[in-house]
Amino acid sequence: MTTNSQVIKCKAAVAWGPGRPLCIEEVEVAPPKAHEVRIKVIATSVCHTDSEYLHQINKALKFRPFPSVLGHEAAGCKSVGRGHLRDSPNDRPPRAKCGPEVGTPFQNKSTETANTQVGVLADGTSRISCMGQQVYQFLGVSSFSQYTVVPDTSLAKIRNDAPLDKVFLLGCGVSTGYGAAMNAAKVEKDSACAVFGLGAVGLAAVMGCQAAGARRIIGVDINPDKFDKAKMLGAAECVNPRDHVKPIQEVLVEMTHGGVDYAIECVGSPAVMRAALESTRDAWGVCVIAGWTETEEMNVLVEKLLMGRTLKGTYFGGLKGVRDVPKLVDAYMNKELKLDEFITHRLPLDQINEAFDMLKRGESIRAVISLWPED
Amino acid sequence: MTTNSQVIKCKAAVAWGPGRPLCIEEVEVAPPKAHEVRIKVIATSVCHTDSEYLHQINKALKFRPFPSVLGHEAAGCKSVGRGHLRDSPNDRPPRAKCGPEVGTPFQNKSTETANTQVGVLADGTSRISCMGQQVYQFLGVSSFSQYTVVPDTSLAKIRNDAPLDKVFLLGCGVSTGYGAAMNAAKVEKDSACAVFGLGAVGLAAVMGCQAAGARRIIGVDINPDKFDKAKMLGAAECVNPRDHVKPIQEVLVEMTHGGVDYAIECVGSPAVMRAALESTRDAWGVCVIAGWTETEEMNVLVEKLLMGRTLKGTYFGGLKGVRDVPKLVDAYMNKELKLDEFITHRLPLDQINEAFDMLKRGESIRAVISLWPED
Repeated sequence: MTTNSQVIKCKAAVAWGPGRPLCIEEVEVAPPKAHEVRIKVIATSVCHTDSEYLHQINKALKFRPFPSVLGHEAAGCKSVGRGHLRDSPNDRPPRAKCGPEVGTPFQNKSTETANTQVGVLADGTSRISCMGQQVYQFLGVSSFSQYTVVPDTSLAKIRNDAPLDKVFLLGCGVSTGYGAAMNAAKVEKDSACAVFGLGAVGLAAVMGCQAAGARRIIGVDINPDKFDKAKMLGAAECVNPRDHVKPIQEVLVEMTHGGVDYAIECVGSPAVMRAALESTRDAWGVCVIAGWTETEEMNVLVEKLLMGRTLKGTYFGGLKGVRDVPKLVDAYMNKELKLDEFITHRLPLDQINEAFDMLKRGESIRAVISLWPED
Repeated sequence: MTTNSQVIKCKAAVAWGPGRPLCIEEVEVAPPKAHEVRIKVIATSVCHTDSEYLHQINKALKFRPFPSVLGHEAAGCKSVGRGHLRDSPNDRPPRAKCGPEVGTPFQNKSTETANTQVGVLADGTSRISCMGQQVYQFLGVSSFSQYTVVPDTSLAKIRNDAPLDKVFLLGCGVSTGYGAAMNAAKVEKDSACAVFGLGAVGLAAVMGCQAAGARRIIGVDINPDKFDKAKMLGAAECVNPRDHVKPIQEVLVEMTHGGVDYAIECVGSPAVMRAALESTRDAWGVCVIAGWTETEEMNVLVEKLLMGRTLKGTYFGGLKGVRDVPKLVDAYMNKELKLDEFITHRLPLDQINEAFDMLKRGESIRAVISLWPED
């Protein structure tokens, strides 16, 4: 079944149209073309970007072709490839990760890979079809399928002893938040930090602030159910904006006698981004946007910048997947990085719509979706 | 006349109300209080911030009390002081500079000095009066007066051989632009830079980019009369947005095959700020806002940040006046920094309204205002 040139038939959760629940279908996965790898997906999960693609909560991608196989935070094993990875010995298990990667020292995104943003691979087509119809791919990954084909730039090869049903988390959310703190904000020792939004990205940002030696980490969320986990991962205190009459930025400026040194936005809301920026200190405050919104604008009071603040965004935490994800896997294996704490539920692929619902209701951090629950 | 405790009578240009021409009046300048210094102003000039205070072109200060003595880019000699500078030998000539300064390693602005923003010194009063009425001070300086009293934190002591009618330029505009490139943007060797707005701040930013070793500097202005000077100071080419149908950011992205590494906004216009940000390159573009607007907001397309851009503002180029202005004076004296090129006109205080008009018409870069033309 998994020989180089054959089409593979397998199960996938297909999104037939915006706002509609995913349907489990038999799909056909074509063999990989040059610089692509076919992956047997072992574990994946639903990230807000998948949900927003489906439901378009104002911050979806500009182009959202359907039908589509979503899913971009995943781990799996190489099935058949003929890209450059083919020549590497011992190349099992590679991991599908969120977003493309190229080898330039500064760049984390290449125009060559822009096609993956609109549902197709480099040659302008998808490798997945269903009942004779092309099914679009998502972010160059499409991990809600037992098999998928991805560009080799969307893969990071990791150590063989890493548990795939844990380290798949490094494919998007956890790496994005951790990298936002360590890499984009470059949080300094003894600094005061605020993290806005305590989902997977935000909790990972809290963990990143702590790893960087922050003196005080304040978690901010309108859902107080998230606070225990944030404290477990390093937040000294948590604040619910709904408990205050004043805007949250004023609350934080008062709590910290002038503002935090670093604020990390992990929600993807322009209003929260503004609050995060304004919660930082005059003269050297840094606000990093890690929450995703592709279509919205934020309003910035220019004076806040002129007083010496820096506002920056980050894509996948400013990490380069091929180089950095294996290091994060090592950190997890060495117990320097937590992942188990992010997993709140486990579901088979058949129940993936429940994973979307739990994420929307704020009940889960990450539900592991098992593609092969019978194994 | 200049003894410690006496009131000095002298000439000043008083702004009696918004939009009205300044009037040359006899004013009374009270002796300095603790941590203040009375300065005999030698040379000053009109900066856009003075003009905006008077005319409120949408980006004025929030509080603009009148009557006021404007002027904040100046050089002079210590007249009478009883602040801590009094104990220093050889302390002539100190220089009045734009904006406050304190000694913390990161901070360039202190809440203690916030009073200078609303027209008074630290004790809540002004040292200048006219016909028995208190006249408000501007940015802790008020250099459109033959004598003024300033907080000692608004002064930088410079070498005795520096020509005051040149180095006064380091009191605001030139330092702001040069610092924006060198200090806030931290322009790197061999980078591509765009400078938006080629007034004194922008021309100084061009000079700063060149000093930092930029490979390509593109000047942007809607007034092509500025282009020759920009090229003299280091711009390889200049672009007039009015010569193009496409938005200027698209023009620059095409010219540089993806965007500039650094963009410096020296206009103070939210639309130009957005263009500057969007003219930078994905993944590592840095946009520094050096143009002033205190009341306006800019719209930022969040995706532009998420793709890896950094947006930051700067106040006085991120310089600390006491520490950095004397170094810039040395650089000028060693011919490493140009100042003469910024001076396009010379006028006595009596003709100061002409200096405002020339600045507004875009005819001057800086007109030196001589406070003692008869000397």
